[in-house]
Amino acid sequence: MAMAPRGFYLACLLLGSLGFLCVLFTTYWAQRWRGGLAWDGSLHMFNWHPVLMVSGMVLRDGAASLVYRLPQAWRGPRLPWKALHAALHLVAFVVTVVGLVAVFRYHSHAGVPHLYSLHSWLGLSTVVLFACQWLLGFAIFLLPWASLWLRSLLKPLHVFFGATILALSMASVISGINEKLLFSLLSQPPSVTSRKNATVPYQSLPSEAIFANSTGLLVVAFGMLVLYVLLASSWRRPEPEALADTQPLLCERA
Amino acid sequence: MAMAPRGFYLACLLLGSLGFLCVLFTTYWAQRWRGGLAWDGSLHMFNWHPVLMVSGMVLRDGAASLVYRLPQAWRGPRLPWKALHAALHLVAFVVTVVGLVAVFRYHSHAGVPHLYSLHSWLGLSTVVLFACQWLLGFAIFLLPWASLWLRSLLKPLHVFFGATILALSMASVISGINEKLLFSLLSQPPSVTSRKNATVPYQSLPSEAIFANSTGLLVVAFGMLVLYVLLASSWRRPEPEALADTQPLLCERA
Repeated sequence: MAMAPRGFYLACLLLGSLGFLCVLFTTYWAQRWRGGLAWDGSLHMFNWHPVLMVSGMVLRDGAASLVYRLPQAWRGPRLPWKALHAALHLVAFVVTVVGLVAVFRYHSHAGVPHLYSLHSWLGLSTVVLFACQWLLGFAIFLLPWASLWLRSLLKPLHVFFGATILALSMASVISGINEKLLFSLLSQPPSVTSRKNATVPYQSLPSEAIFANSTGLLVVAFGMLVLYVLLASSWRRPEPEALADTQPLLCERA
Repeated sequence: MAMAPRGFYLACLLLGSLGFLCVLFTTYWAQRWRGGLAWDGSLHMFNWHPVLMVSGMVLRDGAASLVYRLPQAWRGPRLPWKALHAALHLVAFVVTVVGLVAVFRYHSHAGVPHLYSLHSWLGLSTVVLFACQWLLGFAIFLLPWASLWLRSLLKPLHVFFGATILALSMASVISGINEKLLFSLLSQPPSVTSRKNATVPYQSLPSEAIFANSTGLLVVAFGMLVLYVLLASSWRRPEPEALADTQPLLCERA
């Protein structure tokens, strides 16, 4: 068994805590200021959208992407780790798709057009890219048919698109939180803003705005840490095993 | 002189074209739909903000970050390339700061509070990170005092924060375009939207929305290509020179 690199488990602990806080903060935002969660086509159903998209991002980038950085994954059969990597990404994808269903159902129910904002264009592009990445990864790296040459050729692209999807997810989440706050805090008619406990404009930075802005920065901190763990060369699997890495792993003995 | 890696100059050509289109589209957006550019505290002054922030991003990530990927920079004295890298980043920083001045002056003139949206929080954090990165890079890698040990320790961090600043810039630009469209196309009173040639709501996807959304996706494509060129291992300077890389370069003969 390989020794754990110094600092790696500390980074994992920090990542886990940050990811948990991202989901917790998004859920608290929905519960405390946006009326809570429901699956009924109302604005409460919309609230599942940020909660599930952030959860999907945390699952995908925090748990699924970093499986190969675990020192336990450096030695022994690779298949279980590949299968875990693919399975976690699949769970993250399902969570993400349910998050999309929430916003599409809400739009249909409220008569709001779909896919008009840049946030929605980028978000959907990111999910489509994520789906392509998963399907291609499954077909090339998990199924046994692909040649060593093809795997070697596509592996850097697979890693590159992983980092890219992380960056695009971050941009989608940030623009989404920003958009939601602009909608919720700026578009209230005066009769609403003057009521007790009513929403106050974004520009006066009410507690909801400070909390949701901070949630956005938490997501950014989480994404930065994932990127750091992915790129830190001392936490990568040692290179001498690089060739074995391209063997069809479904043929391996577990 | 090193041979140019296959595809590198094609990627440079594509990057240059994409970067040029990003700036062109942002400027056209301001001119065609937002009343053009002026330095007078009005909304026309605000229009300099997206134009300059996108220009700063294109300069920083397109030109300045990729200096070391040029095959010409692989051999011979390193100092001129380091100086060019630092100088281009400085120009990009100045452009970025002027872009910030544009929005702060407009806000002050129009009585709009500063720094309330998540876009502004993230954007300012990115610029502060960019400033720290430049100052630390200048002090450690360009001035001759730092030890080899310190340079070796900080170089991966410098590269990591470069990629991070690129991702954060992308998120800032996307959330900024989204915010501007929400402000411009959703907050018009009915009396304005019913006038001839008046702004129509974002949700009906008028030509301005399609154009500005596409500009956002262009910025994303540009950022992805920069990330690809930065990460593509075959376009990196060959490793045998890694040690020389950490020598105090102000001591070198040019």
